[in-house]
Amino acid sequence: MVKAPALAAEELTRLLSAEFPQVWSREGGLSIEEVWSGACRLRQAFREQFLRPGATISGATIMALGDYAVYVALLATIGWEPLAVTTSLNVNFLRKPGRVDLLADCDLIKIGRRLVVGEVTIRQEVDEGGAVAHLTSTYSIPPRR
Amino acid sequence: MVKAPALAAEELTRLLSAEFPQVWSREGGLSIEEVWSGACRLRQAFREQFLRPGATISGATIMALGDYAVYVALLATIGWEPLAVTTSLNVNFLRKPGRVDLLADCDLIKIGRRLVVGEVTIRQEVDEGGAVAHLTSTYSIPPRR
Amino acid sequence: MVKAPALAAEELTRLLSAEFPQVWSREGGLSIEEVWSGACRLRQAFREQFLRPGATISGATIMALGDYAVYVALLATIGWEPLAVTTSLNVNFLRKPGRVDLLADCDLIKIGRRLVVGEVTIRQEVDEGGAVAHLTSTYSIPPRR
Amino acid sequence: MVKAPALAAEELTRLLSAEFPQVWSREGGLSIEEVWSGACRLRQAFREQFLRPGATISGATIMALGDYAVYVALLATIGWEPLAVTTSLNVNFLRKPGRVDLLADCDLIKIGRRLVVGEVTIRQEVDEGGAVAHLTSTYSIPPRR
Repeated sequence: MVKAPALAAEELTRLLSAEFPQVWSREGGLSIEEVWSGACRLRQAFREQFLRPGATISGATIMALGDYAVYVALLATIGWEPLAVTTSLNVNFLRKPGRVDLLADCDLIKIGRRLVVGEVTIRQEVDEGGAVAHLTSTYSIPPRR
Repeated sequence: MVKAPALAAEELTRLLSAEFPQVWSREGGLSIEEVWSGACRLRQAFREQFLRPGATISGATIMALGDYAVYVALLATIGWEPLAVTTSLNVNFLRKPGRVDLLADCDLIKIGRRLVVGEVTIRQEVDEGGAVAHLTSTYSIPPRR
Repeated sequence: MVKAPALAAEELTRLLSAEFPQVWSREGGLSIEEVWSGACRLRQAFREQFLRPGATISGATIMALGDYAVYVALLATIGWEPLAVTTSLNVNFLRKPGRVDLLADCDLIKIGRRLVVGEVTIRQEVDEGGAVAHLTSTYSIPPRR
Repeated sequence: MVKAPALAAEELTRLLSAEFPQVWSREGGLSIEEVWSGACRLRQAFREQFLRPGATISGATIMALGDYAVYVALLATIGWEPLAVTTSLNVNFLRKPGRVDLLADCDLIKIGRRLVVGEVTIRQEVDEGGAVAHLTSTYSIPPRR
């Protein structure tokens, strides 16, 4: 059932590091664990700077991770379209994560010509008590010239 | 109609810089322009690191700004409750901002004992062509001891 | 500032009653109060069948009203495009309405070629204690032949 | 792994028909197919009145179905709390359904003391081309006396 991606994890990492180094640098701690056609898993390594009051990882960190997961799954599926942009995103925060790495599992639930919709579940690396957050996000694909 | 805040902008800035320095530091470029009871305006100064492919400010930057705007309006309204946490957030991205400062105007549309809901419009400092993003976010207030 | 609509309220009511009678019939109690280019106000007359446990109007009634408000504002702005469809919708329920008519005020916050985004505030006819619900919804415009 | 519900499908149907007959009547076509602790499947039988322009089932019908699925899963899990109310709901419409029954599969992804979050996938009875809609919804549990 699992289909090979249009772009492999190493190739995507290389392209993203070149075009989007603000996020895809080693220091940021974001990496692609696996990609398929229609899905991916990202890892966000823990960084002290992600903490917010209550010693939990900030919502901003979690939303960014979820948004990037849909971006990577999209690129892995339709190929290199870096100008695809988020048009809407919805997130529910379910449990407060501790000082650990986060894993984001994304499935694309719609792959249209104009819009791609992804669903993401974010968990702690050691998953205690269930998911940290659940997120859906829609990307708009720029029209072909 | 406009009511004085429970905590003034300077006091909030001082408390946030102490408790949440990962975000509320000078380098981050986030600042409180105005607070009232039930509303606030934040400014996110432009930083090169916010750019994503297409030379526009990333969705992650915009979502973080919107989320912090609701947090600040909440603290300005009910007082210092730093452990209030986001339970859900929804954002629509409307136009791609350029290399400029962003302003986030937040109004609290529900102030309950358990849940606070805020609505945020994010604009470019020089507003050309309308808002950049519109966002709603719900915070949960921790129960009183 | 207020611009005349592409289709007036009477004309829209006539077209909707013909094409979408399941919703736009007299018994349903839904009506257009005002339309402009980029905005509208709908009224949902109270019906016993809208009540849910707790003697409040159901969320389903409120969501339907909000969704139709964006549809009407869209048609009033870009003209008769009945095949425009909702791609996403987000709603926050703020206060429980009683046995009264509801008013939905919609503003279009983005009018693109492919996507239109509307924001809706729903209030009780006699507005006590603030809005009942706040909603955003995105419609996709079918490509022109 | 699957746990027995606090209330079985027949008992829930009986209680809902008594307390919420506006929705849970035979004519409406809504029924509980299965319930577990933390999950349920509802069926919405097709009715002509659900159609909207384009001969597809209206978004309002789909949103109502999704919202009721979370309500039923909640009651099946924590017991009879009919005054639980939706605080927010987000839906993505993925494909336009035809003139067929819809099935809604709900999983509760958070079961807190105050908030319950459910995720719902809505499919056509004969599932061609993937899901019709994906929805998340949060319910607030009234405080115990």
